[in-house]
Amino acid sequence: MDARGIEILEATEDIYGGVEVDMKEKKMDSNSFATLLRASMQLWKQQGKKGVWLKLPIELSYLVDVAKKEGFVYHHAEETYIMMVYWIPKTPSTLPANASHQVGIGAFVINDEGEMLVVQEKQGKFGGTGLWKMPTGVVKEGEDICDGAVREVKEETGIDAEFVEFLAFRQNHKVLFSKSDLFFVCKLKPLSSTITKQDTEIENAKWMKIEEYMEQPFVKDSESFGSVAEICNMAARTDGAYSGFIANPKTKKRSGAKSYLYCNKIR
Amino acid sequence: MDARGIEILEATEDIYGGVEVDMKEKKMDSNSFATLLRASMQLWKQQGKKGVWLKLPIELSYLVDVAKKEGFVYHHAEETYIMMVYWIPKTPSTLPANASHQVGIGAFVINDEGEMLVVQEKQGKFGGTGLWKMPTGVVKEGEDICDGAVREVKEETGIDAEFVEFLAFRQNHKVLFSKSDLFFVCKLKPLSSTITKQDTEIENAKWMKIEEYMEQPFVKDSESFGSVAEICNMAARTDGAYSGFIANPKTKKRSGAKSYLYCNKIR
Repeated sequence: MDARGIEILEATEDIYGGVEVDMKEKKMDSNSFATLLRASMQLWKQQGKKGVWLKLPIELSYLVDVAKKEGFVYHHAEETYIMMVYWIPKTPSTLPANASHQVGIGAFVINDEGEMLVVQEKQGKFGGTGLWKMPTGVVKEGEDICDGAVREVKEETGIDAEFVEFLAFRQNHKVLFSKSDLFFVCKLKPLSSTITKQDTEIENAKWMKIEEYMEQPFVKDSESFGSVAEICNMAARTDGAYSGFIANPKTKKRSGAKSYLYCNKIR
Repeated sequence: MDARGIEILEATEDIYGGVEVDMKEKKMDSNSFATLLRASMQLWKQQGKKGVWLKLPIELSYLVDVAKKEGFVYHHAEETYIMMVYWIPKTPSTLPANASHQVGIGAFVINDEGEMLVVQEKQGKFGGTGLWKMPTGVVKEGEDICDGAVREVKEETGIDAEFVEFLAFRQNHKVLFSKSDLFFVCKLKPLSSTITKQDTEIENAKWMKIEEYMEQPFVKDSESFGSVAEICNMAARTDGAYSGFIANPKTKKRSGAKSYLYCNKIR
């Protein structure tokens, strides 16, 4: 209820002058919701609120159309919910954009004998091409990139490894619908040697001399593969011809969360 | 129409054994859509299809509930559309995840006099705190990170600058709803000196001796600000005490798209 005795939607305020409505575990028919939403919007407009966030669980998918009719647009969605939003002021919206990137890793796992861990993939762009490539994968929600590299190597090949450094990274656009991709080439040190390959995605996995990897026509002829291979080749040398960004011990932020700062080793 | 003479939804096939339905510019009532969707799904199941993508423009928000009732879930949404998806096989879904990160930049713009470009923000976490900080911002969809840094500096301060290198980066989790953030500290060389600050977000902007920047209590007392400041301080020295990842000339991918490979300078 608001001060006028009119029932409104339960909402929390954010630090940017906005309100957030989470409809989780609330059941409501379309008509009741429309009435409540209209009364709530009227109040929030009077109060000079800015952004109104409306989170609808997929169980309430029949309310999406109601909110759209009231002027809400989509902001983002995950499997189980959609976030809709309404920007009240006449000035341009300062609402944060949706996530724009996925983050991928390529794992350059090199042993003391100058052999790197390579796989042949069953599916996707390289499926059936015979190309031996480094294990690659996508970093999971909430996962540190260096941990993602270690996990992917373990999943695809059964090899235990530890993160050493980021050798390079590349940004590609329009990789996933309209989204971009940040691909980090990570050097890892293997802690085991016996390969147990994953069956659904990986056709073959083995240790291969880095020279042999580089001699593959696909690697030699591709600007983007070739330049990464050159860097890996230098990073494999024992004379320290190339090294990249290391993961410094996690430091604490004001929020209490801890995170890695990645940068060159400071001498 | 399918081979049985039954009308189905217009769809394109993807290289992963899936189909994509784009309902853009198609108008249809809920009942007709439900009938078509059901017939289509039956056919695609018989054909052994894997993922079914369904893109619904916001104008057809009343079809979201219909698709949900047929077993579709949300994949992602942008302001003007929602993408729903149905994974047909009994095996676990191999559909690509939604974008997981936003990408931010902090611009360390340092002139030959050892002065860095700093701003005081009007809003957000640092609004009204008096903290002088480097210009920061979020990389736009489809924008190269190095270009994003140059753009943000121009927008916030009117200063023209060119990208030199990435000094460091940090990954933070749960920054934007459940999403993560990759924050790149970029060194830039100023090409102009007269500041024209942006009015809506920026309270003040000026050139400040880097020593003075580092002496601010907030910078000194914060682990995360402090470590970045140390790196910037080293990178400002003329003896080359620290340098980071440069942007190599863009190379071409098989797709024809060009992208930067960022890595340490190769001597």
